[in-house]
Amino acid sequence: MSEKPDFDNIRIVLVESKVPGNMGAAARAIKNMGLSRLVAVNPWFRNHPQARYMAHGSEDILENAEVLPTLEEAVASSVLVVGTTQRQRHGVPVMKPGEAALEILDSSRSGQVSVLFGREDRGLLNEELACCQIVVNIPSSRAQPSLNLSQAVMVMAYELYTAVYMGRGAPADYAPAEAIGSMYSHLKSSLEKLGMEQWNDGDNYMKSLRRVFSRTRLERRDVATIHKLCGEIDKYAYRARAELEKEMKS
Amino acid sequence: MSEKPDFDNIRIVLVESKVPGNMGAAARAIKNMGLSRLVAVNPWFRNHPQARYMAHGSEDILENAEVLPTLEEAVASSVLVVGTTQRQRHGVPVMKPGEAALEILDSSRSGQVSVLFGREDRGLLNEELACCQIVVNIPSSRAQPSLNLSQAVMVMAYELYTAVYMGRGAPADYAPAEAIGSMYSHLKSSLEKLGMEQWNDGDNYMKSLRRVFSRTRLERRDVATIHKLCGEIDKYAYRARAELEKEMKS
Repeated sequence: MSEKPDFDNIRIVLVESKVPGNMGAAARAIKNMGLSRLVAVNPWFRNHPQARYMAHGSEDILENAEVLPTLEEAVASSVLVVGTTQRQRHGVPVMKPGEAALEILDSSRSGQVSVLFGREDRGLLNEELACCQIVVNIPSSRAQPSLNLSQAVMVMAYELYTAVYMGRGAPADYAPAEAIGSMYSHLKSSLEKLGMEQWNDGDNYMKSLRRVFSRTRLERRDVATIHKLCGEIDKYAYRARAELEKEMKS
Repeated sequence: MSEKPDFDNIRIVLVESKVPGNMGAAARAIKNMGLSRLVAVNPWFRNHPQARYMAHGSEDILENAEVLPTLEEAVASSVLVVGTTQRQRHGVPVMKPGEAALEILDSSRSGQVSVLFGREDRGLLNEELACCQIVVNIPSSRAQPSLNLSQAVMVMAYELYTAVYMGRGAPADYAPAEAIGSMYSHLKSSLEKLGMEQWNDGDNYMKSLRRVFSRTRLERRDVATIHKLCGEIDKYAYRARAELEKEMKS
């Protein structure tokens, strides 16, 4: 990535949270995962002792939290608004937390991103989800699909943190979409040199290969590794021919 | 995988937890992520109203929780014991949550696995970590590295759930280590046919390629896709020569 994702541009927005302990626990989860910006839209409390108790070492996140009366004001300057919900019908593209994390990080390079979490009892309303460009669905069991608010915050924050740091202490250098696109073009053309169109399942083979790579978050150096492989297949096709010609002439 | 991982074999073990709300929140996180077995080692409370309040729809997990006086008894029948800690020095192999999830799922096919979470204030003691075959380190920020107990349970449970379901509603069919090993052998031999030993960085190329694939959790069909690619490289080496010979003779 040309510029590092900017965690200061990522805001966790709690919409009408009713349980003070949840805001405190969310503040702690935010700080655990290297984030810092908490926004409360029309909360039912302020400076509640239970919030401070649950924040445990993250009281600064609570103290610096922005409190705003409406969601409209809260997301006014955001380049990307992401909603979280377990609800299925709302007409907005749905992503898993890990996929959404990459979109959030990407947008955070150019501006403010708001990630919304709804009320404890009713989540985000449909009209609130309609303000979002992306909706995140945290996978969960049918037996009890509803996560505690601060736990949902933790899942998203954890995905953001691990997407950047991958446990390696340094930000990962993810390949942008266009670099991945040209990697697939190169793969396709090299496979055609190998005769892919005559394979039994030639049509589906590129799909299978895309499946392998789309399950990884490819970094620039991974893309370079695959280009190298393709380049060597390309060169082989010519070299084999040239050597054979030479051999047959001699 | 030949048999599905068995979530009933995975036990979340809270060691001397002191905060009833945490046990309730852990019960909910467990149920959210399709797990069911909670064990409490020497807890400081029983049937506390705050635990029931936080369990919220997961009271059955609390009711069915096993309560045992010592860790020794709690892990006696486990084929794998996994500890969680933010501490660095303890002499046990350290894994990230996602890697540990795969080991846990793998072992759950053959027997009971215990995943230990320590006290709110002191975590797991060194002698408790010494009982573990694997230690998990949840990545977190230096500014506030210590996760709330139930949040740590959620991170591990989420990794287990998503490793199995990958958001696709069906268990993933991961390739076992030996299948991945033979995939690398095939890649190496095909690349040698392409002349890898003469590449500038031939020695390091296999490492780079392993890096690409080790960042994905390969399923059996992914491994088959890569074998297909290698097989076509292999065939090409012969076919190219044969066709060219024919062409040049005609």
